[in-house]
Amino acid sequence: MKTYMKEKIDTFRQEHKNRARLLINCPDQPGIVAAVSQFLYEHNANIIESNQYSTDPDRGEFFMRIEFEIPELKSQIKNLEEEFQAIRKQFDMEATFKYVDQLKKVAIFVSKEPHCLLELLWEWQSGDMIADIGLVISNHETSREIVESLGIPYYYIPANKDIREQVEQKQIELLREYNVDLIILARYMQILTPHFVGTFKNQIINIHHSFLPAFIGAKPYERAYNRGVKLIGATSHYVTNDLDEGPIIEQDISRVDHRDNAEAMKKIGQSVERSVLARAVKWHLDDRIIVYGNKTIVF
Amino acid sequence: MKTYMKEKIDTFRQEHKNRARLLINCPDQPGIVAAVSQFLYEHNANIIESNQYSTDPDRGEFFMRIEFEIPELKSQIKNLEEEFQAIRKQFDMEATFKYVDQLKKVAIFVSKEPHCLLELLWEWQSGDMIADIGLVISNHETSREIVESLGIPYYYIPANKDIREQVEQKQIELLREYNVDLIILARYMQILTPHFVGTFKNQIINIHHSFLPAFIGAKPYERAYNRGVKLIGATSHYVTNDLDEGPIIEQDISRVDHRDNAEAMKKIGQSVERSVLARAVKWHLDDRIIVYGNKTIVF
Amino acid sequence: MKTYMKEKIDTFRQEHKNRARLLINCPDQPGIVAAVSQFLYEHNANIIESNQYSTDPDRGEFFMRIEFEIPELKSQIKNLEEEFQAIRKQFDMEATFKYVDQLKKVAIFVSKEPHCLLELLWEWQSGDMIADIGLVISNHETSREIVESLGIPYYYIPANKDIREQVEQKQIELLREYNVDLIILARYMQILTPHFVGTFKNQIINIHHSFLPAFIGAKPYERAYNRGVKLIGATSHYVTNDLDEGPIIEQDISRVDHRDNAEAMKKIGQSVERSVLARAVKWHLDDRIIVYGNKTIVF
Amino acid sequence: MKTYMKEKIDTFRQEHKNRARLLINCPDQPGIVAAVSQFLYEHNANIIESNQYSTDPDRGEFFMRIEFEIPELKSQIKNLEEEFQAIRKQFDMEATFKYVDQLKKVAIFVSKEPHCLLELLWEWQSGDMIADIGLVISNHETSREIVESLGIPYYYIPANKDIREQVEQKQIELLREYNVDLIILARYMQILTPHFVGTFKNQIINIHHSFLPAFIGAKPYERAYNRGVKLIGATSHYVTNDLDEGPIIEQDISRVDHRDNAEAMKKIGQSVERSVLARAVKWHLDDRIIVYGNKTIVF
Repeated sequence: MKTYMKEKIDTFRQEHKNRARLLINCPDQPGIVAAVSQFLYEHNANIIESNQYSTDPDRGEFFMRIEFEIPELKSQIKNLEEEFQAIRKQFDMEATFKYVDQLKKVAIFVSKEPHCLLELLWEWQSGDMIADIGLVISNHETSREIVESLGIPYYYIPANKDIREQVEQKQIELLREYNVDLIILARYMQILTPHFVGTFKNQIINIHHSFLPAFIGAKPYERAYNRGVKLIGATSHYVTNDLDEGPIIEQDISRVDHRDNAEAMKKIGQSVERSVLARAVKWHLDDRIIVYGNKTIVF
Repeated sequence: MKTYMKEKIDTFRQEHKNRARLLINCPDQPGIVAAVSQFLYEHNANIIESNQYSTDPDRGEFFMRIEFEIPELKSQIKNLEEEFQAIRKQFDMEATFKYVDQLKKVAIFVSKEPHCLLELLWEWQSGDMIADIGLVISNHETSREIVESLGIPYYYIPANKDIREQVEQKQIELLREYNVDLIILARYMQILTPHFVGTFKNQIINIHHSFLPAFIGAKPYERAYNRGVKLIGATSHYVTNDLDEGPIIEQDISRVDHRDNAEAMKKIGQSVERSVLARAVKWHLDDRIIVYGNKTIVF
Repeated sequence: MKTYMKEKIDTFRQEHKNRARLLINCPDQPGIVAAVSQFLYEHNANIIESNQYSTDPDRGEFFMRIEFEIPELKSQIKNLEEEFQAIRKQFDMEATFKYVDQLKKVAIFVSKEPHCLLELLWEWQSGDMIADIGLVISNHETSREIVESLGIPYYYIPANKDIREQVEQKQIELLREYNVDLIILARYMQILTPHFVGTFKNQIINIHHSFLPAFIGAKPYERAYNRGVKLIGATSHYVTNDLDEGPIIEQDISRVDHRDNAEAMKKIGQSVERSVLARAVKWHLDDRIIVYGNKTIVF
Repeated sequence: MKTYMKEKIDTFRQEHKNRARLLINCPDQPGIVAAVSQFLYEHNANIIESNQYSTDPDRGEFFMRIEFEIPELKSQIKNLEEEFQAIRKQFDMEATFKYVDQLKKVAIFVSKEPHCLLELLWEWQSGDMIADIGLVISNHETSREIVESLGIPYYYIPANKDIREQVEQKQIELLREYNVDLIILARYMQILTPHFVGTFKNQIINIHHSFLPAFIGAKPYERAYNRGVKLIGATSHYVTNDLDEGPIIEQDISRVDHRDNAEAMKKIGQSVERSVLARAVKWHLDDRIIVYGNKTIVF
């Protein structure tokens, strides 16, 4: 990584060293918010942002995200997490503390078309997407120059369906070596095996070039053109073993008309793809997404 | 029809008595525009608006719509159409002259939910949708009062899949009696038989409550909710015998999020449905749509 | 009011008889959320929705809206409000309890163009906008028929700038007689005096036909056309004595191009106006808006 | 310029060597389209796209843009332009032929914030914006590295209002040296003198960070924040001597809410700025824009 990016990231971490997020889900019942906010108050937390949602206030599932600051947070973490055990048990919660200065370690997978990769690198360079981009993996050499010019390692691993398992073996080794906890498929045009997907559950974000569930699978722009649609779109979702069926994080569309052939739709769509993927990734990095069943709550 | 609507329509017809539209499609080749515009010039036409499109300038299909005014148009119509035969033959054209003061005769079909019907009546009353609404046909009594209060006949014809043919028989008789040339399915929740659809080819406009081709068929909002989409939409299309597969005229979407259940999506979607249907109908009434294969050119 | 609307409203009130909202603003400091949520928990409240915002978590202003249900709410109101005094004092709060079955009493003011009035009546009839519409006041007779057909009283009060004070005197008498607590200016083209505005602070919602602060004052579409803009818009805001300078509640825009003259812009704009005003009014009726300085927080 | 960009541009020029555009405006009268299309037909032109517009079909101003291909165009240019003189005179036309393989020579001006510059370079590299970028001029060194890495000369010319004339003198010399015919102000934060603006009439495109005419001048995001708007926008326009008052080419907006402070609005706005500027520049490069009075017709 280039020095100026290292400095930018160090500054961010320093400024957010007392910042944490608490993500909760549990069966809804009265008293959760009171208990959690009392707990944070007693631990001197200054609440920056708080969001909650219940599928049904009567007997639904309850979700909450609180971002807060605690003076000298580093020295408090152990206490904080231990003392929260009582609340966790009382309400039968899944609860996770996230510490903002512990950046997520990211791998970007890309094939030939670089527009989504470039958008992510752009957002990262400009400081709008704070992450530790460990490496880029591609089955093409196309994007090596731009990636390496930013000081990011680039691994060329040729891939096709006949050598899928060997390829994934190499990829998994690299991902472990770099301690990756988020994989972004920035138009990576290879299908992943259940083994790979299972290894990184809710840690793989894909961009699909249609507004799902329309045009699942290959060549969505051609099929959109053939159907004569007046809107094209893109969808970012977590990857599961059902192709293009994982929990949707974000979608958007753009207008097209009869003058746009499949090639024109592809150009128009690329602009939607890059912004949709960038938004989804930023929400993930900000711990704004809770996956519940096959859906996402995005706070 | 109420007197003030009759007056509004009469005024419109009087103001547009010299206004016509020429719709063309033929194999593309050089010289079409030159020939057509020379023809109109020689017939003293003042061109109001002109649009053209070719699927491929080399050997594609060519489409054109010209709106124009000719002094004393009524006395020229016969000449105009006869003398255009030469051009029609030369370029192997499908060509239609439409005369703006000959309003389209419309039937609106509706079931229980009145929002699309009401939007159309609204646009019609405010003078933004110029048509001769002959009748409303419904398998429910729900909307009788509002429709009759505007002086429009309301026919209640109970319907279900077991009596489909008898029902359509009655409907077709009414449509013939009223000389209907456009049928609008404003959330009419009955499937039409191939016989009915074939009788009114490219004359039936439907509104489907999803962005097709996603969620073809029943209960799209429920299915959208279950899939966890972040956008819902509506599609207006000409009806063919493939359910929800006809040529798309217009589509639009609205954003939803995890807080919106199926019921909320339905409410949000109704607003999209009504504006999408109203736009599609107005384009049809303005002779802006050419159906080509299973697609529309909308000028 | 027509019987079926009375029934619809009665049903709504019955279903929400235990529903209340608490609106808070105070200087931000740790412990507010803990105290409020503990208070509600102790009063057996089931929280339906909760939103909060702070202009600055350090020393800013804190805002909160909580919607909740308490069994047998009616018998608890006195207790609830009295016992909340301690918290109110502790945090130096402005705090208001709103009871959902106490519908707001609304007057709609309109001049000639009925599109915004009709949109409101539509939303009201379809049950999407729950309010007690007491009366419509207009300086034209245009909309009398449609308003009276819904069983709503219509008062024709001719108005112009020379008789402004007499006119407003009559209007205020009517507003008092009907116990109005929300006035909607649905394209009412008369300027109100400081006396009138002062009498109904943050209780008058206007729709202005431009995206403010562009095109303050008269004839915004003409001026938009002359400027050659590519977007036109509408703004809904609370009325203050600075013309079109009050706190903005909602804005939206629509695209236009060189083919749209001022008249076409006006038509396009009307559709934006009606949806922007309807959204703003619904948020007000749902107690989602807190006015702070010259801005709104919309939860 | 890097070799691969040279190759990409050479390919484009080769593929479009027979492609031209004809831009016309003149007083509207019958026969214009007939004459022009007959002329092109006689010169063996294959029409790719044709657009026309009249401010008023009766006695308005008429505008037309035709894109066409003529076999062996290079050898026909002289004939074509000479023989068109008759039509030009007959209809009192302003008419210009543009040849698509003669790329526009572009200078980009930028100050500190690089997002608009980077968007343009991105579109250029990906082949979506075909132009000959001659040089970048900046009053800061910030963007030198990225610009030079693409093989584009970067000129650092410090600027402030006290040395405006000397600065512009140097800039004009450079612009002449590079034969520049389009100047893009990609967030160049210096005001230009009337002399400079007059030297490049309708050849300077600016991006202003508000939806004009709201927030003309400095610090629009701060002022938008203070006004409490719910939308922020950006406007691309040709530069005239009235600050931010030149003919508008394109505008767009993004939603904001009470949680967005001026800094957040700036971030959100940058994304709008870059897409609005890129669209405007591409339309200019495609000869789609005709300036008429203080407005643009964009075909």
